Amino acid sequence: MATIMDVAKLAGVSKATVSRVLNNNLHVSEETRARVLYAIEKLGFKPKFSAKALANSKKNFKIAICISKRMDLIKDESDEIGQFYGIILKEIKGMATLYGIEEENIHLENPQKGYDGYILVSGDVTKEIIKEYRKLGKPMVLVDHYIIGEKIDSILPDSFDGSFYAVNYLIKHGMKNILHLHGPLNSYGFRSRYNGYTEAMLSNGLIPKYYEYDDVNNNMSYVVKKIIKNEKVDAIFTSNDMTAIRLMDELKKYNVKIPEDISIIGFDDIPKAKRYNPPLTTVKVFKQEMGNIAFKRLYELMLNENIHPIRISLFTKFIKRKSTK
Amino acid sequence: MATIMDVAKLAGVSKATVSRVLNNNLHVSEETRARVLYAIEKLGFKPKFSAKALANSKKNFKIAICISKRMDLIKDESDEIGQFYGIILKEIKGMATLYGIEEENIHLENPQKGYDGYILVSGDVTKEIIKEYRKLGKPMVLVDHYIIGEKIDSILPDSFDGSFYAVNYLIKHGMKNILHLHGPLNSYGFRSRYNGYTEAMLSNGLIPKYYEYDDVNNNMSYVVKKIIKNEKVDAIFTSNDMTAIRLMDELKKYNVKIPEDISIIGFDDIPKAKRYNPPLTTVKVFKQEMGNIAFKRLYELMLNENIHPIRISLFTKFIKRKSTK
Repeated sequence: MATIMDVAKLAGVSKATVSRVLNNNLHVSEETRARVLYAIEKLGFKPKFSAKALANSKKNFKIAICISKRMDLIKDESDEIGQFYGIILKEIKGMATLYGIEEENIHLENPQKGYDGYILVSGDVTKEIIKEYRKLGKPMVLVDHYIIGEKIDSILPDSFDGSFYAVNYLIKHGMKNILHLHGPLNSYGFRSRYNGYTEAMLSNGLIPKYYEYDDVNNNMSYVVKKIIKNEKVDAIFTSNDMTAIRLMDELKKYNVKIPEDISIIGFDDIPKAKRYNPPLTTVKVFKQEMGNIAFKRLYELMLNENIHPIRISLFTKFIKRKSTK
Repeated sequence: MATIMDVAKLAGVSKATVSRVLNNNLHVSEETRARVLYAIEKLGFKPKFSAKALANSKKNFKIAICISKRMDLIKDESDEIGQFYGIILKEIKGMATLYGIEEENIHLENPQKGYDGYILVSGDVTKEIIKEYRKLGKPMVLVDHYIIGEKIDSILPDSFDGSFYAVNYLIKHGMKNILHLHGPLNSYGFRSRYNGYTEAMLSNGLIPKYYEYDDVNNNMSYVVKKIIKNEKVDAIFTSNDMTAIRLMDELKKYNVKIPEDISIIGFDDIPKAKRYNPPLTTVKVFKQEMGNIAFKRLYELMLNENIHPIRISLFTKFIKRKSTK
């Protein structure tokens, strides 16, 4: 039988690092963690848990990770959705491996019986879809989404708090004309960011100004033309990093210098944000931690522990890079 | 040494019920739970935990429950604050007993060294107070409050969700002229309820209308006079039950019939809500569960587990009584 040393050797890390992964200490980098989980699976290593956890694992839970059809394309983290959801999904699968729980991907749109719990990962979840899943009578957890009045356990970033902090930072650094370029407001996440921006502006006696960017019709060149024509702008805060990157691509065509002419702040901290020129100042969403907490919450619910439904919002972190003065 | 049977006998409940309390199953009524916890303390009963929990309990944690000076008056649940915070505090103390952890009350305003963790229970917590507690360098959890941008672990009711649901209920039952009588909006809880009301009205194409009730100056008679003079009212949604009760007291002086003339909905579900005539329709805040989750969150943080800071919002429950049509 494989030992913890075998795992450490194959993963090329110390025994202490393997221990940290097993104890679910998130101070291990994502890359290292992935290598350790790979080695655990490859070697068929069985971690020792407490008596209680062992008793539970005898229950042989099987869970479904439900993603929408349009996310099938996620093969790695090279595309836009993959940069965000890919990390969440990897963490959920990693936790399942650690806990010795079987997991399968199914399509969100086709609820299937036969699982002990469901993790719904997508902003595409609707009230109608929730209704179908309720019929299955099993615990479920919603990730990166929340639907008003449905009282489903939900795990999401604290977008309101993060936006308020970022916009407040710009104001404290002397900027006044700050625009918000937001996505469709039927998304709860975008709406929370919109509200955080608004709260920061109003509480500092500044007037909020909004532009909507609609990524289906990709109207960025139209929006940028309008901004350049009509506005005196110190900074633009966007709903997410992809919007910020498209915005910067477009602004460059008009020879706008970032950050000298306009400061830009995104949201999410996708890997691309750091690599862009200039590197994007943003608000980090803790994607790995979201996957981790989502898995553990579903696990609790399957054990019938702490069953009162809750919404868990993970605080974000402001990351200063070169796209802001 | 006392056995589980001794505890059951003294508490006047079955062994299974004691087990449920020990396993932290919240399907036990508050009264029963209190009796069992009393018996456990009285008999010095030591529950058996898993090996891991035992190892942890050897750490002899000592925690401080921090309440503001004005809450010293809480002797029981007979007064207004006691009806809400009394239940939360009782649960935190009960959990400490269960986990074999020493707890002491201290004044929020006078942070003191010498504890392994702090639970701050009060809407009176400010940024300045948080700064003082940070200096102590120990984990802390905030209950029933949240401060923007401070990233402190916080446990609170999902006021936005609950308000939306309640107001939407009124609208679905044919009411259109729905007022919101709210407390001071510098309170995060009141602001969330205000936002939930607003969202429900706007998303149904109705115009929100607000009145502020300020319980320091107790301007209820002034507010009610204004409402009666100026408004066509089907229903009034208030920020909390105490406001709803004062409102109904005042409306009765004008011979307004509840619910025939005006429907009233409160928020919190304090014990008095059920006993009022007519019994008050309200949104239940899960106070016991809030105390429970707050304790467990602090416990995790003291063990250095799952340390990413989070805000946990507990979904509420709409309770239909006789104050609404």
